[in-house]
Amino acid sequence: MRVSYNEMKSELERVLIKYGITGNDAMLSAKLFADASLKGVYTHGLNRFPKFIASIENGSVDITKRAILVESFGSLERWDGQQGPGNLNAWMCTERAIELAKKQVFGVVALKNTNHWMCPGNYGHLACEHDCISMMWTNTIPNMPAWGSCEAKLGNNPLVVSIPAKGGDVILDIAMSMFSYGKLEKYKREGVMCPVDGGFDRDGNITRDPAKILETHQVLPIGFWKGSGLSLVLDLLAAVLSGGLTTREVGLQSTETLISQCFIAINLSAFPDRTELEKKIEATLKDVIDSKPLKDGMRVHYPGQGMKRTREENLEMGILVDEQIWKWVLEQ
Amino acid sequence: MRVSYNEMKSELERVLIKYGITGNDAMLSAKLFADASLKGVYTHGLNRFPKFIASIENGSVDITKRAILVESFGSLERWDGQQGPGNLNAWMCTERAIELAKKQVFGVVALKNTNHWMCPGNYGHLACEHDCISMMWTNTIPNMPAWGSCEAKLGNNPLVVSIPAKGGDVILDIAMSMFSYGKLEKYKREGVMCPVDGGFDRDGNITRDPAKILETHQVLPIGFWKGSGLSLVLDLLAAVLSGGLTTREVGLQSTETLISQCFIAINLSAFPDRTELEKKIEATLKDVIDSKPLKDGMRVHYPGQGMKRTREENLEMGILVDEQIWKWVLEQ
Repeated sequence: MRVSYNEMKSELERVLIKYGITGNDAMLSAKLFADASLKGVYTHGLNRFPKFIASIENGSVDITKRAILVESFGSLERWDGQQGPGNLNAWMCTERAIELAKKQVFGVVALKNTNHWMCPGNYGHLACEHDCISMMWTNTIPNMPAWGSCEAKLGNNPLVVSIPAKGGDVILDIAMSMFSYGKLEKYKREGVMCPVDGGFDRDGNITRDPAKILETHQVLPIGFWKGSGLSLVLDLLAAVLSGGLTTREVGLQSTETLISQCFIAINLSAFPDRTELEKKIEATLKDVIDSKPLKDGMRVHYPGQGMKRTREENLEMGILVDEQIWKWVLEQ
Repeated sequence: MRVSYNEMKSELERVLIKYGITGNDAMLSAKLFADASLKGVYTHGLNRFPKFIASIENGSVDITKRAILVESFGSLERWDGQQGPGNLNAWMCTERAIELAKKQVFGVVALKNTNHWMCPGNYGHLACEHDCISMMWTNTIPNMPAWGSCEAKLGNNPLVVSIPAKGGDVILDIAMSMFSYGKLEKYKREGVMCPVDGGFDRDGNITRDPAKILETHQVLPIGFWKGSGLSLVLDLLAAVLSGGLTTREVGLQSTETLISQCFIAINLSAFPDRTELEKKIEATLKDVIDSKPLKDGMRVHYPGQGMKRTREENLEMGILVDEQIWKWVLEQ
């Protein structure tokens, strides 16, 4: 079943208003959920919406609160998310990082006490619209063992880098675990193996079997010891820069909330060689997608390319929805 | 065979002077090579030294040149490495990033036209000594296929993050390929398989066999499509920020030179909650190393922990050297 972008946006807005989010914020939050689904990030669009509403109801998201500036020293601003909606807080901090970048080339905002940012590609695209590169990351609850351990002490701490490009922005959005729990559940439901190794079974052996990984909750970090180390430093950077909670501290709570995030924007419009830089970026992207495929029929993509295609498709044909979830929305 | 740190330093200095590097620079360069070996990064310490001398002789390193400031806008400084020695250029840019961080909390230096930085852990440690976090990365020649391709269009683009910590600094130093070519050669010489999947064989199948990977030169990115994307954005960021060459452009030359790098330092001493941050970092590191091991007898480490141990050991007992390479040094 497909639903038009505008219909999705207005239905979600109606539900958000019903649950107490007001005015422009309801409109923006609805747009961010719909935009995620529009570009094919279904897991953090419509499909995440019921969980978001549940987090309002269970109190882990406080809809009356928004991020506020608490401290500023040198080129760093520290904001407090006050446990408000993660997507609105992240949007606000991205806007602020862009604003700072417009003044000083690099804009850095660190945010504490916030909630899940939903689809970070939205903030990456926002930066690109303002001709900014962005680098953003978040910590999470402990959900991944450090390399050599079976006990989840690290977060999967997604990292996002966006780079404006004429033919379609580069939007890298990678968690430090090879697969999210949502993806593992999906593979299990579909009765398929993970395309590459995804975690450990009960005997401590690496496996592609999603059911076995869901039993142990021991997902593999990307690049084994490398992603394990990267997760650790992303957590420490987010917590140190914002003065907020580390993954360890987030894990001491009953649910994932009060997490820490960083937003860096770099204003390309300030670069004297902006035109040549554009050509450099285009030439590299073309070079990569023109790579000889590993096997006949395969194609090489750069991060964000698929989003652009899906967005155009979904705008034209409507967004593919999970009927049960869409029904739930309409019934609210 | 083991050689004392001081002996290694003074012999390397003698050779560097013979090849035309003068004064303090010879001393610093020798120290950087010896420090790498001292902390166990043998591949980028003594073992790399003959190759470095060769690059002076073949002209890809110009020992008469050093990095100079060419442009500054907002909080960004752009330096030109003028094809000088990569380790001296990187040291200089790290020092400058620290200096900028001391003024404005974030210091950002982008460097173009430089050479291989050898052991970047040295610059990470330098930042830590000045109570700075550092984030640094470099591009390289094309040496890794993008995910889905068999043609090396991406670099392995190492990324370094260092965080000061009382019990031993966190020093993450990861290339975007699962294994370096040096490591694959080593496994092949020793007749062992890679501990995890490392690349593709001739039939396009993923393999742990170092000999088969060395045949195709198709190394695996960390986290497959994820490391492929990360490599791409690190390259674009380094080239765009510095105005220097992209991996694609570096590959148009006959050898790896005129590469692009970024150096970011963040001055923790400027943070009003420095004391609490120290506790946060310590608590997380303790939590991670105290993780329950996956199997009996395994131990969990954080990045940089091993370096500290090896450094202490090598300071006391002398640095383990490859006898042939050491003999070569003494004969110069």
